[in-house]
Amino acid sequence: MNQDYIQPDPWSIIEEGFDKEQVKSSESLFSIGNGAMGQRANFEEHYSGDTFQGSYIAGVYYPDKTRVGWWKNGYPEYFAKVLNAPNWIGINVTVNGEPLDLNTCKEVTDFRRELNMREGWYRRSFKATLPNGVEVRINVTRFLSLDFDEAGIIRYEVTPINAQAEIKFEPYLDSGIKNHDTNWDDKFWNTTNVISDGGQAFIEAHTMKTHFDTCTFMESELYHNGEKLDVAPAATTSELFVGHEYIQKADKGETLALHKFGGYTVSRNHKADGLITAAKKVLKKVTDFGFDELLDRQKDAWAKIWEMSDITIDGDVKAQQGIRFNIFQLNQTYLGTDSRLNIGPKGFTGEKYGGSTYWDTEAYCIPFYMATKDQVVARKLLKYRYNHLGKAIENAEKLGFSNGAALYPMVTMNGEECHNEWEITFEEIHRNGAIAFAIYNYYRFTGDYSYIPEMGLEVLIGIARFWNQRATFSTQKNQYVILGVTGPNEYENNVNNNWYTNYIAKWCIDYTVEQLQKVKDGYPEDYGRIIGKTKLTDAETEQWQIVASNLYFPKSEKLGIFLQQDGFLDKELITVADLDKKQRPINQKWSWDRILRSPYIKQADVLQGFYFFEDHFTIEELEKHFDFYEPFTVHESSLSPCVHSIQAAKLDRMDQAYTFYLRTSRLDLDDYNKEVEEGLHITSMAGTWMSIVEGFGGMRVIDDKLSFTPRIPDQWKSYSFKINFRNRILKVTVDQEGSKFKLEGKEEMSIRVNGNRLVLNPGSETTA
Amino acid sequence: MNQDYIQPDPWSIIEEGFDKEQVKSSESLFSIGNGAMGQRANFEEHYSGDTFQGSYIAGVYYPDKTRVGWWKNGYPEYFAKVLNAPNWIGINVTVNGEPLDLNTCKEVTDFRRELNMREGWYRRSFKATLPNGVEVRINVTRFLSLDFDEAGIIRYEVTPINAQAEIKFEPYLDSGIKNHDTNWDDKFWNTTNVISDGGQAFIEAHTMKTHFDTCTFMESELYHNGEKLDVAPAATTSELFVGHEYIQKADKGETLALHKFGGYTVSRNHKADGLITAAKKVLKKVTDFGFDELLDRQKDAWAKIWEMSDITIDGDVKAQQGIRFNIFQLNQTYLGTDSRLNIGPKGFTGEKYGGSTYWDTEAYCIPFYMATKDQVVARKLLKYRYNHLGKAIENAEKLGFSNGAALYPMVTMNGEECHNEWEITFEEIHRNGAIAFAIYNYYRFTGDYSYIPEMGLEVLIGIARFWNQRATFSTQKNQYVILGVTGPNEYENNVNNNWYTNYIAKWCIDYTVEQLQKVKDGYPEDYGRIIGKTKLTDAETEQWQIVASNLYFPKSEKLGIFLQQDGFLDKELITVADLDKKQRPINQKWSWDRILRSPYIKQADVLQGFYFFEDHFTIEELEKHFDFYEPFTVHESSLSPCVHSIQAAKLDRMDQAYTFYLRTSRLDLDDYNKEVEEGLHITSMAGTWMSIVEGFGGMRVIDDKLSFTPRIPDQWKSYSFKINFRNRILKVTVDQEGSKFKLEGKEEMSIRVNGNRLVLNPGSETTA
Repeated sequence: MNQDYIQPDPWSIIEEGFDKEQVKSSESLFSIGNGAMGQRANFEEHYSGDTFQGSYIAGVYYPDKTRVGWWKNGYPEYFAKVLNAPNWIGINVTVNGEPLDLNTCKEVTDFRRELNMREGWYRRSFKATLPNGVEVRINVTRFLSLDFDEAGIIRYEVTPINAQAEIKFEPYLDSGIKNHDTNWDDKFWNTTNVISDGGQAFIEAHTMKTHFDTCTFMESELYHNGEKLDVAPAATTSELFVGHEYIQKADKGETLALHKFGGYTVSRNHKADGLITAAKKVLKKVTDFGFDELLDRQKDAWAKIWEMSDITIDGDVKAQQGIRFNIFQLNQTYLGTDSRLNIGPKGFTGEKYGGSTYWDTEAYCIPFYMATKDQVVARKLLKYRYNHLGKAIENAEKLGFSNGAALYPMVTMNGEECHNEWEITFEEIHRNGAIAFAIYNYYRFTGDYSYIPEMGLEVLIGIARFWNQRATFSTQKNQYVILGVTGPNEYENNVNNNWYTNYIAKWCIDYTVEQLQKVKDGYPEDYGRIIGKTKLTDAETEQWQIVASNLYFPKSEKLGIFLQQDGFLDKELITVADLDKKQRPINQKWSWDRILRSPYIKQADVLQGFYFFEDHFTIEELEKHFDFYEPFTVHESSLSPCVHSIQAAKLDRMDQAYTFYLRTSRLDLDDYNKEVEEGLHITSMAGTWMSIVEGFGGMRVIDDKLSFTPRIPDQWKSYSFKINFRNRILKVTVDQEGSKFKLEGKEEMSIRVNGNRLVLNPGSETTA
Repeated sequence: MNQDYIQPDPWSIIEEGFDKEQVKSSESLFSIGNGAMGQRANFEEHYSGDTFQGSYIAGVYYPDKTRVGWWKNGYPEYFAKVLNAPNWIGINVTVNGEPLDLNTCKEVTDFRRELNMREGWYRRSFKATLPNGVEVRINVTRFLSLDFDEAGIIRYEVTPINAQAEIKFEPYLDSGIKNHDTNWDDKFWNTTNVISDGGQAFIEAHTMKTHFDTCTFMESELYHNGEKLDVAPAATTSELFVGHEYIQKADKGETLALHKFGGYTVSRNHKADGLITAAKKVLKKVTDFGFDELLDRQKDAWAKIWEMSDITIDGDVKAQQGIRFNIFQLNQTYLGTDSRLNIGPKGFTGEKYGGSTYWDTEAYCIPFYMATKDQVVARKLLKYRYNHLGKAIENAEKLGFSNGAALYPMVTMNGEECHNEWEITFEEIHRNGAIAFAIYNYYRFTGDYSYIPEMGLEVLIGIARFWNQRATFSTQKNQYVILGVTGPNEYENNVNNNWYTNYIAKWCIDYTVEQLQKVKDGYPEDYGRIIGKTKLTDAETEQWQIVASNLYFPKSEKLGIFLQQDGFLDKELITVADLDKKQRPINQKWSWDRILRSPYIKQADVLQGFYFFEDHFTIEELEKHFDFYEPFTVHESSLSPCVHSIQAAKLDRMDQAYTFYLRTSRLDLDDYNKEVEEGLHITSMAGTWMSIVEGFGGMRVIDDKLSFTPRIPDQWKSYSFKINFRNRILKVTVDQEGSKFKLEGKEEMSIRVNGNRLVLNPGSETTA
């Protein structure tokens, strides 16, 4: 770990004491979001110290022109990125004419931040002595409403401590914002309208090129010792800015509070010419409720989320805090209300990765959303890819494939490829497999087959066509091979016959052929439509099967293991344990070529295949492969520890599983990778959830039934989680004695625990 | 080929007729240079059409900040590039107040360009009807002096044809120039001084960061019907510009001529504060001589160059023109007068490749310079690398090597790596081998061993250390392997055990060990100094030898060939002949991944090894490898056809050799690669010379003696070339009957022709 200033607490993230060095880290860690918008924990009042501003609107992106040193044919022209949006949170504060700025105060004491995850709000409080000698107590509470997801609410309280003082609040909107992440310093936003209208203000601005129209809005109320004052603000407007001034005196000990209601209306959801009208409607609603009632509704909304998705851990507050932080952030990022949206690796907490979609969604996030939400949410995530199928086919065509072969992009916003690193963009093609696997996984878990005839089969056909064309025949091996790929372990590039890629390629074809038959038999109308649309012939599927059944898999007979790729055993096989610690992390200490020729593995690769397809292999085979590959794994991807935690648990190596668990669940809180100030690792947080539910809980779906093999780390007294399995809610509690299962609803359900059938009756807890 | 507008002529490059579409191509093809400066064939007068301006000063470069999409550890911070320098050639011309602009003239007839290679000048003439109806004849002659290499001279003649006219000449200097090739639109030049002083003018400017101070200068003379006029120009100066106005009336048929003397003095060669003084000295010299005498001296200077380096081809004017164009351009680019300079792939004819040094110099250019110049020139090219040894060691350290291991950069100006593409920068390490090979080759050809104890051995030790560290031991193979490299064929990246790389690595170590012993025995003082400096121990050289003698070479026993790399035979081995022509060139038609997994070879790779080390292999082995690899070779590198031409000739396949020869010798004239407007392929021009001398002539050095196996294409009557072998000048003439040898000097010399010893007596021609 790299930091430990976050206070342990089961439900809150807490920082105590003001440290300028931690401002940017805390801006990430205390981020808030509601699925539609997100906000880093920037101060409302002016701060002249080092800060990383970030306000984001889901789905509002800009295609930034690709920047490369050396162009390769096939590179996309643009990288679509979610932009830093106009600032709606700003409230400049002056005390007797002196600006409040934490960077210049004489003294700051009692500084405390709390992100209350249970209730969904963020609070910052401190006492400050301004350069003019006035002492004030500040208390700011902020949240992004789950009920009204275009709005955020701030209550900014100022209490003079040592003297009467004149306080000026200047809530403002500012569209003079910049992206840190920009390839060419393009102008991203064009501001077209700045309006102050009584107590309300609006800035209309659109993104360049994509022309997303947005209206950033605000309205404020001033309170004196809890009493609302009827004051009209003075307004300042300029080209990119509108501010409102509220000036009021407060005696020692009296509290002035500004309630600011703000947010965005966007042309994704409204008519472009009706954004101000829509904003006024939102403001009407939220001001009618007022701060307190909105906060109550926020607590209720989060209570509902926690009701289903909470995981409790008893006896290990850091582990408890870690898992809740992960679950909280996932829910802040994506709530499944909009199938045009997806889950970016940094969510709304930073600019890195452009807020775009990676294979992380299918490989890591879908299990979490399937089990903790209604199945419609996971279906929306699948539909997102179905909607992008045309673009995936175009993407494959750009790379020379034809006949409806689909290659889903490595990184995307609207279905087009954004990424431009040949060894990834063109070669990390296993992502196509994860997208097919998610379809299988969705059906396996939810039992909802309808997605496959309605949408999924077309996706599968595009993917199977891709693999069929991508494999080539090796006369020498008399088998099909897949040359020039990058596997999940990105510390190998342009290798031949990455075992994971070959394995998932074969699986994709086999699974598609199986589904074709199933849809033909059970959904003849859909089948006819799909065959008509895709022009799929029997001859073509036969060719697929020839490829699938003659695909080559590298292995070592001597070691009895599959090889990560051709030639892996030619490396200098020095384990990570024998690697000088000063050389790590290798992605910071070594040049790229040195990493590539080393045996070190960034994240599960062969073991990712053993995770996806565990029922294809015996536990002995898993153990052999885990024992061979894990010692070479440096876990320098946030997606690495979770899969290893699950497999270590399965192998009953609970100490190792627990170590991996801590690393995944507190990756950001403890800043293992020394980069939390750039934002949080949102998608890997779903892997943390898997570590508990699938790792420690041993949850699987086998033959349409839930199955558990519960284990518990020595460090814990107990833990519990809930699963929504095919609209049945099951609570699982595991302690050092054993496990208990409690079913909601009315009908009984049978599950398997440690291989034994267990019939659960609703309402009562059953001990296994 | 892609164009054929260049008129065939044995000594000149000629374009007839004005075609705006060809302006940029011709600007490359008619470029002039004198080793110290270069100038694309831009028009002197204003041209409002599409043009690519280029004036270059050898060795004046700027470190442009690296631009990449995704940073990899180890990338250099800068790419040093020779900059487009202030314009000294400009002469605006107006006729009765109407600007002469070839893009807007009513009519342009009799347009002709000639680059006279024999005499080293460039001339452009045409008749134009201006928009105001005045017809003029224009005749412009320009050259860069070989005698005074800081100066260029222009004679610009205007003759009104249909009316008396007032002609205004405005010769100017302009430092408001831009690079096309710029990563961040940096300001490259800072202009500090703009002076008009009587008939002279000066602009002082320095490059940013590197702070090369330069003075661009000019002085002009006006002539009326050959009579010099005593006129003082009016001057216009601004921040980046100085122009002189000469206005004069000419009657119909009378000729006004402006003689412009201009060029650069640079702080590389003078004190920074003495550049104007130095410029005035140059101007004094060149104006004292005057245009005609300078042109005579130019003819003499080029005659001397041709005397030694000309190759004649009788019966094939296009082949004759091609080889002379190649020899001419090489001499325009590098004359061996300055060991700080080297040979950029585009010379002074464009911005691509930044005017920097590649392994092309060692692999392709050194043989040409060794055989056509005094050996001191080749020695200077070797010394250039010796001077960069410290930087090569630093470069290796950046990539994790230690103990004095040296990795020469892929691209460099001052010894530091400039390139930033991991698969090239970090992995195309065979370049180190070419640098060692050049040392061997220099000694083999010149017999000058002194370079090795004085400088070469230190370079060899650094290189041997690199290979020793770069090879790793494969337990599986029980041999040393070299993983993760890019061979000469850049259509394969990050492969294991590239045969060429492994072979040259072993050779480097073996050769270094051999030289260590030789220096120890013959030059004990040097040996002591070097051992002291490098701290080389016997234990270390023993370790080298263990690696060298246990290095693995991929091969196919079945096919009886060495494999380009591990796994090559797993590719779909479809020959180029069977590849759809529409798919070519694959580097324009295919995405990078598709190229990588194909069997197609960009340039000689295994065959490059067979070229360098031909005496290690039998002719049958060569034939087998040529027959296997050439059919997969797309020759999409300018460096490819020459090596294949040499080998085809050796295999007595003269038709194929001739086809390759034409492609290499007329690559730019016929614009095979559709890119001549970007500049010429200078370094591959040396390969063309090799195609004739080593290919058709079959020249080799065997046991300190010249040896020939002369062949001649059916298309030629005869050809001849001269060789400076160890300060003996030998002229070789080959015709369809046989070959003749004529030796200069006083002593006899024995050579081998077709394996038979032949004793040559000076002065008389000996027929073989």
